Amino acid sequence: MGLYNILLFIFIALWQPTMQYILLNKFYGNYQNQLRTQNELYSGKYKYEIKTIDMPVDHFSFSVPDTFKLRYLVNNTWQIKKDAPIFFYTGNEGNIENFAQNTGFMWDIAPEFGALLIFAEHRYYGESMPYGNKSYMDLNHLGYLTSRQALADYVDLIQYVKSKPEYKYSPVIVFGGSYGGMLSAWIRMKYPHVVQGAIASSAPILQFSGVTECEAFVRIVTSDFKTAHTNCPKLIRRSWNTIINITSSDKGREWLADSWKLCQPLKNSSDVQQLMSYLEDIYINLAVVNYPYEANFLTPLPAYPVKAVCKHLTNQSLVGTELLIAIHKAINIFTNYSSETKCLNLNDSVPQLGAVGWPFQACTEMVMPICSDGINDMFKPRSWNLDRYINDCMKQYSVKPQPNLVCEQYGCKDLSTATNIVFSNGLMDPWSSGGVLQNLSSSAVAVIIPESAHHLDLRSSNANDPYSVVLARKYHRFFIKKWIQEYRDKNKIY
Amino acid sequence: MGLYNILLFIFIALWQPTMQYILLNKFYGNYQNQLRTQNELYSGKYKYEIKTIDMPVDHFSFSVPDTFKLRYLVNNTWQIKKDAPIFFYTGNEGNIENFAQNTGFMWDIAPEFGALLIFAEHRYYGESMPYGNKSYMDLNHLGYLTSRQALADYVDLIQYVKSKPEYKYSPVIVFGGSYGGMLSAWIRMKYPHVVQGAIASSAPILQFSGVTECEAFVRIVTSDFKTAHTNCPKLIRRSWNTIINITSSDKGREWLADSWKLCQPLKNSSDVQQLMSYLEDIYINLAVVNYPYEANFLTPLPAYPVKAVCKHLTNQSLVGTELLIAIHKAINIFTNYSSETKCLNLNDSVPQLGAVGWPFQACTEMVMPICSDGINDMFKPRSWNLDRYINDCMKQYSVKPQPNLVCEQYGCKDLSTATNIVFSNGLMDPWSSGGVLQNLSSSAVAVIIPESAHHLDLRSSNANDPYSVVLARKYHRFFIKKWIQEYRDKNKIY
Repeated sequence: MGLYNILLFIFIALWQPTMQYILLNKFYGNYQNQLRTQNELYSGKYKYEIKTIDMPVDHFSFSVPDTFKLRYLVNNTWQIKKDAPIFFYTGNEGNIENFAQNTGFMWDIAPEFGALLIFAEHRYYGESMPYGNKSYMDLNHLGYLTSRQALADYVDLIQYVKSKPEYKYSPVIVFGGSYGGMLSAWIRMKYPHVVQGAIASSAPILQFSGVTECEAFVRIVTSDFKTAHTNCPKLIRRSWNTIINITSSDKGREWLADSWKLCQPLKNSSDVQQLMSYLEDIYINLAVVNYPYEANFLTPLPAYPVKAVCKHLTNQSLVGTELLIAIHKAINIFTNYSSETKCLNLNDSVPQLGAVGWPFQACTEMVMPICSDGINDMFKPRSWNLDRYINDCMKQYSVKPQPNLVCEQYGCKDLSTATNIVFSNGLMDPWSSGGVLQNLSSSAVAVIIPESAHHLDLRSSNANDPYSVVLARKYHRFFIKKWIQEYRDKNKIY
Repeated sequence: MGLYNILLFIFIALWQPTMQYILLNKFYGNYQNQLRTQNELYSGKYKYEIKTIDMPVDHFSFSVPDTFKLRYLVNNTWQIKKDAPIFFYTGNEGNIENFAQNTGFMWDIAPEFGALLIFAEHRYYGESMPYGNKSYMDLNHLGYLTSRQALADYVDLIQYVKSKPEYKYSPVIVFGGSYGGMLSAWIRMKYPHVVQGAIASSAPILQFSGVTECEAFVRIVTSDFKTAHTNCPKLIRRSWNTIINITSSDKGREWLADSWKLCQPLKNSSDVQQLMSYLEDIYINLAVVNYPYEANFLTPLPAYPVKAVCKHLTNQSLVGTELLIAIHKAINIFTNYSSETKCLNLNDSVPQLGAVGWPFQACTEMVMPICSDGINDMFKPRSWNLDRYINDCMKQYSVKPQPNLVCEQYGCKDLSTATNIVFSNGLMDPWSSGGVLQNLSSSAVAVIIPESAHHLDLRSSNANDPYSVVLARKYHRFFIKKWIQEYRDKNKIY
């Protein structure tokens, strides 16, 4: 169980908007188990103090007097002067320790800037539970899980730290990846007097209705597979009907369960649907974590795992059982790279960071449409059906998704007043579909990283990093320096 | 009962932070009566449709499913084209019809711009009661009276209007005076993708702890009186001890009650304190509404009423009963200009717009410190005592004031990222103490109006307007034109 095991939690959380759509009901499991699993899995390379701060459950009314302890991590090893820069990670959907361990970029550059490091946990994740083990009990308790409340938590925490004379004139730079990157961008937009600049990596702030085509996401996944081998997505696309045809008979289902070493039999078409959803998740996951170096996740993966998968899917003439045997070999890269798994358990969904809270966020604010047409992508055709989505959420949480809320609250189409934000996106990352890929203004800029998957730039430096990632980190440092200098000039701090 | 009668409601609301401090307990009266009085007093010059829109009581959580009807007024008389500019008044603490009737500037310029006019009522005021007649019952119901919820109401309403194809590319310009001006500035800062520009008149967004000296407000009041006559504030300052000395005996209290034609006797020193607070309120009120033309408020006033008052307070040698007789003549300008009042009823506090809700806002977000030293101003010395303030609020509402909340949420000291806002302030207006008096950026500018009292520039054009007010309105129109043009250029609307 190493560092990378934990990383999987982070990445998997990022697929959730997709998975949430595809597998809405899969996630509403036993959250207590999930939490336990997360905590047990943690072990870390970087060291920090763990602190808490009292937070109001509701920042926006005076009707709820409840408070809770928000957890945050602090490291002041590199802080040598008064008014040191504060590097602040805006935690996303998971245990903050995982983010601290997997945002090596902040640790890498802290010495150069003499920065104080703070990692703030997102409410309703990790150990920052507003109502303890009742937090997820019902809407009364869970309803304060919103991005706007989380931003207000971070603002309060920053103000608290800056209330100490030592940090009175400390410039604050926020960092975040994925949903954490969305929070980084938004906190700068909404509270520019509190935060001097933001590195928002792989932040799909445009992955919303009416802004981004819902097909975009799976087309990038498909493109990653096509780049690995031109026949790869064709064979995956062909496999869906092959699976349906072969599993239409008892004998076919038996054959597939046996051939793929499933732990349970495929009893009916519903089991077959579950299998296909499982496959889709795997393909998406592979594209998201398509990293340039071998990584030991919960399931260890080779460098560029999509390429490794597609090595088995090059022969254009594969059909029928031969095709399915090849598919099995391919997904083995993901499910059994270490050859330790005895059988493939479809009910054994990969432990997920945010598995508890994200489905609720996806059912309220974070309605991110994803769809596929099966023609321009390698997935089964699946339209974006908002009515069904709303129905599912109503059933699950008695809450009505608000697909326009994010764009109304934070803006999507007109972000021209944004300043001091770097939006970095890897073009291999499916989530770049909803990223900011063009400069918004002279100081809110887009950094495109052609060879990067999901927020690789926020990870610690690695010998195998492609040059475009190395370059992106140089951009980040350039802008961080500039924002700090501007702040100091304005406040006459030398 | 004329147009100006209503105006008094607006202005009096603006004194409330002061009055709230000075007379905290005076305001917690029968709010139902206040509401009735407001409604009865309304009669209008401008015409509009009255509409409502369903609003969530709580925009920032999913735990409160309640909705209510927010009232707004619409006039489309001058709208001649698709995508007409929307001039949107961000209602403050009172019945929105009063603001519509007293923001003549918007009506004056609507034809020139072909604009749609909208006036939105602030929640918990007028008829926009989230919980009907239970809205003020307790903290559970009242706690959603916050500026941030109000801004979210306005954002929702604007988005609703713009969801109609006719207004899809309508630029939105917001207007507001005093607290309404604060809301106008803040909505542009927080939602620049929704609002293209803001005219924030007499908006004391800096009248908060640690930003503005608490003495500033009363010094401007004093300066207005000094400008009228150099001896005027000296005599007012002298009068406090004179009142205390003379009323220290039964005979003296009888004399004063008789001489000033009070409706009730001055039974004890507490009654005397009430009298002095009443006087302080009058002096502040006079400075705020120190308008260049005769105005028929609840109590009719002459042009430049401060000058009229000070005509009686020029003789430096006035002392004792002679001084108090002169003070009585002076305040008669305010209390009895029409010579209809038979006796002066200290319990008859002037009907106040916002009398119900503002004390709660002042006890939560809007903690605006005001104090006097009695040396550099003409008032009784009164320190700013936050502890006492907090105690009073705790007693009254079971709520703890948050003196730093506004600056944390909206920013005070660093507003350099603000764009497309005109902050206009009259230098005769005591509230300019907390106004933005210097440009924040090239497009967030300060317009100083030397000869103006409280947001005179938002009133309809008048032959007696000083030139500086005429000029300020030209600035407003220049910027409004510019913002509309920039929006249209960006969206290619010609």
